[in-house]
Amino acid sequence: MDIQIGRGKTARRAYGFDEIALVPGARTLDPKLADTRWSIGGIDREIPIIASAMDSVVDVGMAVQLSKLGALGVLNLEGVQTRYADPHPVLDRIASVGATEFVPLMQELYSQPIKPELIEKRIGEIKQQGGIAAVSGTPVAAMKYGQIAAKAGAELFLIQATVVSTAHLSPDTDPSGASVPLDLAKFCEEMPIPVVLGNCVTYDVTMNLLKAGAAGIMVGIGPGAACTSRGVLGVGVPQATAVADCAAARDDFYHQTGTYIPVIADGGLITGGDICKCIACGADAVMIGSPFARAQEAPGRGFHWGMATPSPILPRGTRIRVGTTGTLKQILRGPAQLDDGTHNLLGALQTSMGTLGAKDIKEMQQVEVVIAPSLLTEGKVYQKAQQLGMGK
Amino acid sequence: MDIQIGRGKTARRAYGFDEIALVPGARTLDPKLADTRWSIGGIDREIPIIASAMDSVVDVGMAVQLSKLGALGVLNLEGVQTRYADPHPVLDRIASVGATEFVPLMQELYSQPIKPELIEKRIGEIKQQGGIAAVSGTPVAAMKYGQIAAKAGAELFLIQATVVSTAHLSPDTDPSGASVPLDLAKFCEEMPIPVVLGNCVTYDVTMNLLKAGAAGIMVGIGPGAACTSRGVLGVGVPQATAVADCAAARDDFYHQTGTYIPVIADGGLITGGDICKCIACGADAVMIGSPFARAQEAPGRGFHWGMATPSPILPRGTRIRVGTTGTLKQILRGPAQLDDGTHNLLGALQTSMGTLGAKDIKEMQQVEVVIAPSLLTEGKVYQKAQQLGMGK
Amino acid sequence: MDIQIGRGKTARRAYGFDEIALVPGARTLDPKLADTRWSIGGIDREIPIIASAMDSVVDVGMAVQLSKLGALGVLNLEGVQTRYADPHPVLDRIASVGATEFVPLMQELYSQPIKPELIEKRIGEIKQQGGIAAVSGTPVAAMKYGQIAAKAGAELFLIQATVVSTAHLSPDTDPSGASVPLDLAKFCEEMPIPVVLGNCVTYDVTMNLLKAGAAGIMVGIGPGAACTSRGVLGVGVPQATAVADCAAARDDFYHQTGTYIPVIADGGLITGGDICKCIACGADAVMIGSPFARAQEAPGRGFHWGMATPSPILPRGTRIRVGTTGTLKQILRGPAQLDDGTHNLLGALQTSMGTLGAKDIKEMQQVEVVIAPSLLTEGKVYQKAQQLGMGK
Amino acid sequence: MDIQIGRGKTARRAYGFDEIALVPGARTLDPKLADTRWSIGGIDREIPIIASAMDSVVDVGMAVQLSKLGALGVLNLEGVQTRYADPHPVLDRIASVGATEFVPLMQELYSQPIKPELIEKRIGEIKQQGGIAAVSGTPVAAMKYGQIAAKAGAELFLIQATVVSTAHLSPDTDPSGASVPLDLAKFCEEMPIPVVLGNCVTYDVTMNLLKAGAAGIMVGIGPGAACTSRGVLGVGVPQATAVADCAAARDDFYHQTGTYIPVIADGGLITGGDICKCIACGADAVMIGSPFARAQEAPGRGFHWGMATPSPILPRGTRIRVGTTGTLKQILRGPAQLDDGTHNLLGALQTSMGTLGAKDIKEMQQVEVVIAPSLLTEGKVYQKAQQLGMGK
Repeated sequence: MDIQIGRGKTARRAYGFDEIALVPGARTLDPKLADTRWSIGGIDREIPIIASAMDSVVDVGMAVQLSKLGALGVLNLEGVQTRYADPHPVLDRIASVGATEFVPLMQELYSQPIKPELIEKRIGEIKQQGGIAAVSGTPVAAMKYGQIAAKAGAELFLIQATVVSTAHLSPDTDPSGASVPLDLAKFCEEMPIPVVLGNCVTYDVTMNLLKAGAAGIMVGIGPGAACTSRGVLGVGVPQATAVADCAAARDDFYHQTGTYIPVIADGGLITGGDICKCIACGADAVMIGSPFARAQEAPGRGFHWGMATPSPILPRGTRIRVGTTGTLKQILRGPAQLDDGTHNLLGALQTSMGTLGAKDIKEMQQVEVVIAPSLLTEGKVYQKAQQLGMGK
Repeated sequence: MDIQIGRGKTARRAYGFDEIALVPGARTLDPKLADTRWSIGGIDREIPIIASAMDSVVDVGMAVQLSKLGALGVLNLEGVQTRYADPHPVLDRIASVGATEFVPLMQELYSQPIKPELIEKRIGEIKQQGGIAAVSGTPVAAMKYGQIAAKAGAELFLIQATVVSTAHLSPDTDPSGASVPLDLAKFCEEMPIPVVLGNCVTYDVTMNLLKAGAAGIMVGIGPGAACTSRGVLGVGVPQATAVADCAAARDDFYHQTGTYIPVIADGGLITGGDICKCIACGADAVMIGSPFARAQEAPGRGFHWGMATPSPILPRGTRIRVGTTGTLKQILRGPAQLDDGTHNLLGALQTSMGTLGAKDIKEMQQVEVVIAPSLLTEGKVYQKAQQLGMGK
Repeated sequence: MDIQIGRGKTARRAYGFDEIALVPGARTLDPKLADTRWSIGGIDREIPIIASAMDSVVDVGMAVQLSKLGALGVLNLEGVQTRYADPHPVLDRIASVGATEFVPLMQELYSQPIKPELIEKRIGEIKQQGGIAAVSGTPVAAMKYGQIAAKAGAELFLIQATVVSTAHLSPDTDPSGASVPLDLAKFCEEMPIPVVLGNCVTYDVTMNLLKAGAAGIMVGIGPGAACTSRGVLGVGVPQATAVADCAAARDDFYHQTGTYIPVIADGGLITGGDICKCIACGADAVMIGSPFARAQEAPGRGFHWGMATPSPILPRGTRIRVGTTGTLKQILRGPAQLDDGTHNLLGALQTSMGTLGAKDIKEMQQVEVVIAPSLLTEGKVYQKAQQLGMGK
Repeated sequence: MDIQIGRGKTARRAYGFDEIALVPGARTLDPKLADTRWSIGGIDREIPIIASAMDSVVDVGMAVQLSKLGALGVLNLEGVQTRYADPHPVLDRIASVGATEFVPLMQELYSQPIKPELIEKRIGEIKQQGGIAAVSGTPVAAMKYGQIAAKAGAELFLIQATVVSTAHLSPDTDPSGASVPLDLAKFCEEMPIPVVLGNCVTYDVTMNLLKAGAAGIMVGIGPGAACTSRGVLGVGVPQATAVADCAAARDDFYHQTGTYIPVIADGGLITGGDICKCIACGADAVMIGSPFARAQEAPGRGFHWGMATPSPILPRGTRIRVGTTGTLKQILRGPAQLDDGTHNLLGALQTSMGTLGAKDIKEMQQVEVVIAPSLLTEGKVYQKAQQLGMGK
């Protein structure tokens, strides 16, 4: 398996979703029979798709709508929603500035403090309108606001860091050399609601997080469209490999403990095909941002940006103009008005499952995969030129 | 052979036509000696090229012309030709709308019902003008219109689904758990004319379809220019691998039964080189769409689109402006006026066979292949820039 | 070595020059010490570079200049120089037509017959001006004009076909089933001057051609900038592999017979780096077209096109506007005015040999090679954008 | 390990930084704890980044500022700074000419002789302003000006050639066949200050240079943005492999001798991620040019060019308009105003080390690497189109 990069340095080849495709087998299935249900922290959902905890994707209205449509949306506790009583003018400004003013504006806007009372208010609004209140924070925010969110009625808490680990060295390390500012196991135990942990990309870290009491595992470092971790930090693992590795830990943990904890692929997914391939690599569900940022209801007003962007010292992630292509319902359940795989994501998943003969998510995780790079070849460029009307 | 994508998930590397090339051996042949004949369902043809059952490619006139030129064209029983007594104004509208109105227009136009009397009419017209009447439908259409088409004089019936299988689970499954809305074996047996089945991409499914009585096997899922199955559904197998696998099933079936059933590569082929490479991987013939959509006689009026486009819930496929580059005769038999491999497809095949020393299709299936990705390298971009007059 | 494309179809991975690079070792050399001399058919040359037998590259003046500069140019016996007493207005027309009129014009211009007296005249002109008269023709032209050229004073005859073989089946085959319109061995024997044969890409064919009496072997099918064999015919082998294979045959033939016959890489070479990599894979010399088409003295007037373009039934090759970048002397021996590797090709070879510590061509054939694809990566695109002043 | 390119020609696969990524493990670290210190020739530095000895990057002011910020800048002894008493008008001219006039202008400007008194003057200016005086020259310049520079107070001397070796054959070779115009071992011994040697790319050459007395090893041939060695000469080794190989020699030399000599990756690095990946492959530090050429203080005035450009006979390297994006302090230590990885390089390295749980450079050299090509795939192009606002 190991390939030698140079003397004394070996590496594994990792695969991304652009490099694989799914192979139809000997059985097909009526898409209506495709059962896409899954469950996380005791919450049953029809659609294995979660909207990312990003300011351009989820606000109170989106969280409520996503819940009602059978999916789930996660509110970021450290974004504009909990810093500003009225986030609308703030989002208007973000959508209106030019490219060069964007990073400084974000750094300014996110220097406003987070207000605990707004955390309570947003959670209350979601629940009041009949939505599922799932919220997300970094480890620091989890320590500060975890209990507040739980008391306010949150049903699911996601701790999301670019990279999460159970062993974190910090300047405040105790004399024994042990860690840690946030003891994830202790946090999971003390929280009255299920805690989802991420992001990770390896078998070992997944296993550690599972043992720490995670109710779900977020998988994905560095692959996303609105994330430049790989360029800035050199860090990242292609998603097909990361998902397969982490799913293997989930399965082994299940065999050892009898507890099945879902694995959620997060980052870099744009089309229905990407979602299908994620599940085929072992994911139980996916978290997506940019496809939902294109909904009419999205708070981003046709823009999408990463949550590392406002970093005062090392901003990462770019604001992308994704445009607005339809309603949230069209994007999630169709009918599609676009033919590029970004509308009717549930329909795409069901049709793919039907094509592949997979009755449910567990069967979809077992379908045959081929390595089939969709590289830009001369032929592809020729085709593309034809599509653009540039053929001779 | 198996490559590990991640723990517990292995995959085979599959190859597309952009990744291979053909190697001249120790013998060459005068192209005039290259024998390209093949046979399907008792119909002998000089040219192993079939025009796709697509509204932009085949209407009555095209089917007739293709027959007379030594090839074959397939009329789609579920397109505009059988929904509209006069399809011309419909095709004019498709060619005239803008990109954003295209999908909704297609969804509207294809909501018109299929008229059995138009099926009979079109088949009659083809035969009356001396053409071979080959028609195509989905499994649903096959059940509804198969006998009608046969009685009207059709000589070949193609059942084409994105993915076809002999085991299909549907909500109407009988209590025993057995299938099926369309029993392919029963259909083949009951139809008075030969039935071609597809599309498939694996050895096992090919073998199942052969045992079900197929008179030909269509190979290809997800590789086509006007098809976005891979983006929307994640599904697809690169054609070189799919063709080789399915051809192996054909050969094994022949050794077991003595019956030789041709394998037809369908999807993603644009140039003469693509056709040659398909046959070198084991195909007996190819089905192509976009090269014929560029004929002056093509119904698409310089446009080309996939037959999944009109789907009311999950449209796939894009309308491509392919332009009109010459007559059908020029495209099929030359003389070529373009030097890019899209004119004189028969001449290209014969010249390639001559270059490779292959006397007939069976020998062409055995020529040596190398893996030689035509990836976009810096050097290629430099060359391309030179060609576009952008060299320094 | 063999990779499975699909069941029953295996292939070797072949490499192109864009995929390799040369590795400096433990010794360097003053470039002035780099000895680039080589010999073909008894003709000693200082520079291992031959100008292609193409109408855009070599006329009488170019052949003479190339000889005087230490290189070699080959006049095509089937181009405009031997069809027109005054080729200048013909070349003016080729340079002035638009892209769509190009192929028909070429087909018209090349329908003029070849005039034996012009063959004699051109050869005489080259020799009179002190040049080496090397000429080239297809097998058909070789039969017709070989003796005429030899008598007129040609010193080297190249038989060049897209693909050449010692076993060619034609309709005129004699009753015994044996071949051949042109018996290469017989031709080599009967010609009073050395005969170079090509093009080929495999060990076996090279060995056959060597046994037939070749004074040089041209290697390269399908890799060239002005050649679209791969797109039109699917045929081609990447050059690094082809050159290495054919060079192995040369070495084995030398060990068996004591006769050393040079291998000349032909096609797809643009920069000094390409030439260096060719020799490092085993070539003794290279034949190049487009770099010379950019000379002020070139007959192409800033354009370059392949000799398969005029084919009346299956034209291949595109006219490329390469521009005019300097004098032939600058391109071949410098000083360079461009920094992209297309000026001072001899200087580039000597500098590369110095860098790699190779004292002569035989040592250069042994330098270490790495597989290092210069693929277009995101990083490369970023760099390129910076170069174009598009960086943020 | 060896791959067959063709018969008798094998090659190793070499990897570049675009093809790898770093994998977070089971431990994370507060970035504040990341210790980035390193040492070269007895000089301790906080930041393992050296500014390239290029005219567009380092002048007296840059060298001083870089020293004060914890990094290092190297002054080129053969550039405009030592040819012109007042280099400002010269740099103005370079920044103002058009692309076609650039190479001839450079050839003219660099034909001015190097003035020993300017070498002394520049070194004096750097030291007077509190900077570390590190200077660089080719082997020829080292012989001529090495002692002058040392006497003037230089603290570090870099001998940099495109390719350096301990065995160089030149026309002045003595009768015994031994070398050498510059005996590196003798030079290192006689110089009163530490001597850094490069560039090299292999284990063996690194070992030779270490034995010759190098105080540091520069690694990198052919990978840089402003260097076209690979195109012009065919020479180059992708950096991940080169760095790993040379670092292995450093480690073996350390185990044999107890002396630890740092390896510095030079060429092709643009972002913080590139720097992180270099160190993860084994480098102790990096040398970078283009990121610093973008500083307001840079002498290049928003342009960047290679030092091989002025070659009178074989110019290589292109002038790139890199623009000016911030102060040197922002680029090196932040805060970043850009989110693309070119600002706050130290912060990026510390954040990456924190993410990967690496406490110091030695631990960073051991982090897990995956092969994960960031090739341009169709998906990536789609994402990029979205970012550019071209999504539908």
